Amino acid sequence: MTLEELSARQRAFSEARAWGPWHTPKNLVMALTGEVGELTELFQWLTPEEAATAAEDPALRPRIDDELADVLLYLVRLADVLGVDLIEAANAKIDRNETRFPPGVGRTALEK
Amino acid sequence: MTLEELSARQRAFSEARAWGPWHTPKNLVMALTGEVGELTELFQWLTPEEAATAAEDPALRPRIDDELADVLLYLVRLADVLGVDLIEAANAKIDRNETRFPPGVGRTALEK
Amino acid sequence: MTLEELSARQRAFSEARAWGPWHTPKNLVMALTGEVGELTELFQWLTPEEAATAAEDPALRPRIDDELADVLLYLVRLADVLGVDLIEAANAKIDRNETRFPPGVGRTALEK
Amino acid sequence: MTLEELSARQRAFSEARAWGPWHTPKNLVMALTGEVGELTELFQWLTPEEAATAAEDPALRPRIDDELADVLLYLVRLADVLGVDLIEAANAKIDRNETRFPPGVGRTALEK
Repeated sequence: MTLEELSARQRAFSEARAWGPWHTPKNLVMALTGEVGELTELFQWLTPEEAATAAEDPALRPRIDDELADVLLYLVRLADVLGVDLIEAANAKIDRNETRFPPGVGRTALEK
Repeated sequence: MTLEELSARQRAFSEARAWGPWHTPKNLVMALTGEVGELTELFQWLTPEEAATAAEDPALRPRIDDELADVLLYLVRLADVLGVDLIEAANAKIDRNETRFPPGVGRTALEK
Repeated sequence: MTLEELSARQRAFSEARAWGPWHTPKNLVMALTGEVGELTELFQWLTPEEAATAAEDPALRPRIDDELADVLLYLVRLADVLGVDLIEAANAKIDRNETRFPPGVGRTALEK
Repeated sequence: MTLEELSARQRAFSEARAWGPWHTPKNLVMALTGEVGELTELFQWLTPEEAATAAEDPALRPRIDDELADVLLYLVRLADVLGVDLIEAANAKIDRNETRFPPGVGRTALEK
């Protein structure tokens, strides 16, 4: 399934529940913050080593999947409401990043 | 382009810059927070009406595209590092939501 | 009670539970994100009018108090771990803002 | 200076700029997210060791002070707009935490 198809599925889901009036850009940006907060809570007390293998932990994995899904779903819904093509925007951003961050320079470039 | 192809492009971009050691789950979760913060800053002082048409504002639109792209790119990178299939996780979440939120009940369901 | 005294109380609380090794700057920044996410969830689906009187809602008020408290407590803990005097830093910031934002110009200044 | 006095100073600053109409609870929660995002960006690519001594880095310290101040200032403004006494709420929360988290049990309690 493409991201566009996922977006259409999520839109149909919202329309069937008459959530349109609540799915405003400001509300969806806030919902995205809430979900990133929940995702962060899964990782905040883990050591870097534990975090690196968190997805292999059978108790943690479903919660990670769930929170990553929630972040994606609100992001896709927000982009849909705003009329933004996420894949196109992301590719345009990588195009720009290829100029901004020349290959091979390590963290220096990351910190720009 | 599928989300999987975008993820592969983003992975190649990171590898060419030797960013692997910094692209740990905890760091990427933090980077996601940073980008959601930047996205939020674009909307925080807008009225609901202004926010609804923000994507039609020629000065604002490129910044919205840019921040939505950054959120998606770090999300895709994080899922890749963790070995999670985002599209699969998101569909599984909608499947569950179809049971959790019966259609037609408006905001009551949203607040669960 | 001053903020400094609250910080000392919070530090003693953490020390009694041997949480020092987990209260690193990165972990505490993440914990702050988690709490801001929980606070955001209380407001995200409210209309602006509902949000304006949310603190008068007897069901919502204890949850608002609770999340505002959690944000403050992690902020105070983080500043303590970093050795930053929050009141001093905040006053220095208002001093600078008095120069950056001349009085009387409304939202224009906000958007700087 | 007490937190209450800082809040009064911040309120006077906002009133002199006629920011009241924009300082709604939802907008201020979003502004808090934006500032936590900026704070997070200072720490996201640091190793745990670098983060532990970040406040001693003369280039980083003013930026840390600045972002911690911004988080506190929006938190204080939000609490003021909502009519919440932050110090009282935080003490009530520590009181509850003393029951929820018995001393001496390490990270187990943190993860509750």
